[in-house]
Amino acid sequence: MTRMTQRRKIHRFHLDGSGSEYPVRHKEDVLAAEEPLEIRLNGRSFAVTMRTPGDDFDLVAGFLVSEGVIRRHADLVSLRFCAGGNGETQTFNVVDAQLAPDVPMPDTMRHVYTSSSCGICGTESIDAVRKAIHFHMAEDGLRVPVDILAGLPDRLRAAQAVFDKTGGVHAAGLFRVDGPEAELLCLREDVGRHNAVDKVVGWALREGQLPLSGTVLQVSGRASFELVQKAALAGIPVLSAVSAPSSLAADLAAETGVTLVGFSRGSSFNVYAGRERVGRPATAVRQESFA
Amino acid sequence: MTRMTQRRKIHRFHLDGSGSEYPVRHKEDVLAAEEPLEIRLNGRSFAVTMRTPGDDFDLVAGFLVSEGVIRRHADLVSLRFCAGGNGETQTFNVVDAQLAPDVPMPDTMRHVYTSSSCGICGTESIDAVRKAIHFHMAEDGLRVPVDILAGLPDRLRAAQAVFDKTGGVHAAGLFRVDGPEAELLCLREDVGRHNAVDKVVGWALREGQLPLSGTVLQVSGRASFELVQKAALAGIPVLSAVSAPSSLAADLAAETGVTLVGFSRGSSFNVYAGRERVGRPATAVRQESFA
Repeated sequence: MTRMTQRRKIHRFHLDGSGSEYPVRHKEDVLAAEEPLEIRLNGRSFAVTMRTPGDDFDLVAGFLVSEGVIRRHADLVSLRFCAGGNGETQTFNVVDAQLAPDVPMPDTMRHVYTSSSCGICGTESIDAVRKAIHFHMAEDGLRVPVDILAGLPDRLRAAQAVFDKTGGVHAAGLFRVDGPEAELLCLREDVGRHNAVDKVVGWALREGQLPLSGTVLQVSGRASFELVQKAALAGIPVLSAVSAPSSLAADLAAETGVTLVGFSRGSSFNVYAGRERVGRPATAVRQESFA
Repeated sequence: MTRMTQRRKIHRFHLDGSGSEYPVRHKEDVLAAEEPLEIRLNGRSFAVTMRTPGDDFDLVAGFLVSEGVIRRHADLVSLRFCAGGNGETQTFNVVDAQLAPDVPMPDTMRHVYTSSSCGICGTESIDAVRKAIHFHMAEDGLRVPVDILAGLPDRLRAAQAVFDKTGGVHAAGLFRVDGPEAELLCLREDVGRHNAVDKVVGWALREGQLPLSGTVLQVSGRASFELVQKAALAGIPVLSAVSAPSSLAADLAAETGVTLVGFSRGSSFNVYAGRERVGRPATAVRQESFA
């Protein structure tokens, strides 16, 4: 196990086809690690980016090439990890690049990461997001039927098929869950997954629907720290991704009370945080109400 | 056809299994549109992001929620498109958000997009990148055998399998092409696709290997404007993606002399720019040299 991956306890749900049973297995899953990296130029903060730890000197060097700051090896005198904050702990999340004297410093500092005041480790990043949250939803009592939740990726794709001729866009669909039903409120597409989510949240704000209690946001790709952050800030209690979450996405979800679902593939999904919002199958509830 | 998609002429290659034939079909493909969007707050530039046009007011509103600038409808007085530059053309790529008087302006401006000096339309973005390019490669004479190129996604996955336990990371693999052979020089993984590419480019810079002439960069996901930009700045002549490119990625590749391959799926791929670098099958070349 390197620093590139982290283990987390998850709940795995597997539907049996009828939708009326849902064995839960507790297991461990290996997640891609995600941590903030602060890049300094000659000791001065230049950028903060979220990344998977490992090959960080390569990342910094390549980032500076992409930014047009350097273009050859001689432009870079040295790279070293330095302790962040007030000369405290060595988190290996801050890299200082010493540039050659003839390399001009860029005139604007770049902040890739949303919260430019964030710290230099995952915990501080989570704290920064938590402080910015205005909607609290830990105790909202929402229960999303397990079969409804498992069916959302298909519903997203069906709705997306109308728009997507390209195979090249991400989609985010907002569903309102009311008992055994889920209604698609808003679907947005974009080449950037964060943009698709921003478009949904912006729609809700303009409709006066924030905070988005009682909803599930289904996304087409992976779940990063940034996506959980957007869900938490909009008061969305459940974020479901077709693909994998990162370690920091799972941590942030747990800390902010967001239910995080990953690898949602029709007949099965994993729950990384907030398992209490996954409820009994809608089919069972319907059967009971007819009984 | 909305503004969300754009048509481009492409070359489609399909291998017949033996690798010795490669029918080329010229066709049109529909690409997800990608354009820069400048977001202004009370007339002052706040951020530039790359996005698929459409629902831009939703995008701006949601972006401002995610940034913690606003949290409810009343915080936003109005949204309007304004002409960029010196009051010139209306590109629908600049949105000004008027905030309510009691909403504090954020103290730092945010630049999501690499080149913060970029313009407000795709053409100007391309011009900005072109000016930053130090390595010219349009006439490099590189020919990548069609079957070698088609096989790179599998080689990337095979090498990645060693590292990837998570299903949650992007990969970028740099291959040096020498006649009928391709050698994997560097493989990097990250939760962010742009980070994976930066790590490869940074490795090359630190090894003194820039510009990366004679190489192909194979990536696991889609090809955005930003990825083509990174390839062009590092002097990588061929960028191949497993999934779809955006419209602006294809345009930038054509303008900067990068060969852009998409939907590379083992037995077929599309070429969106720089078709001349796709050469005869390596098997054919080998057969000839034995004859």
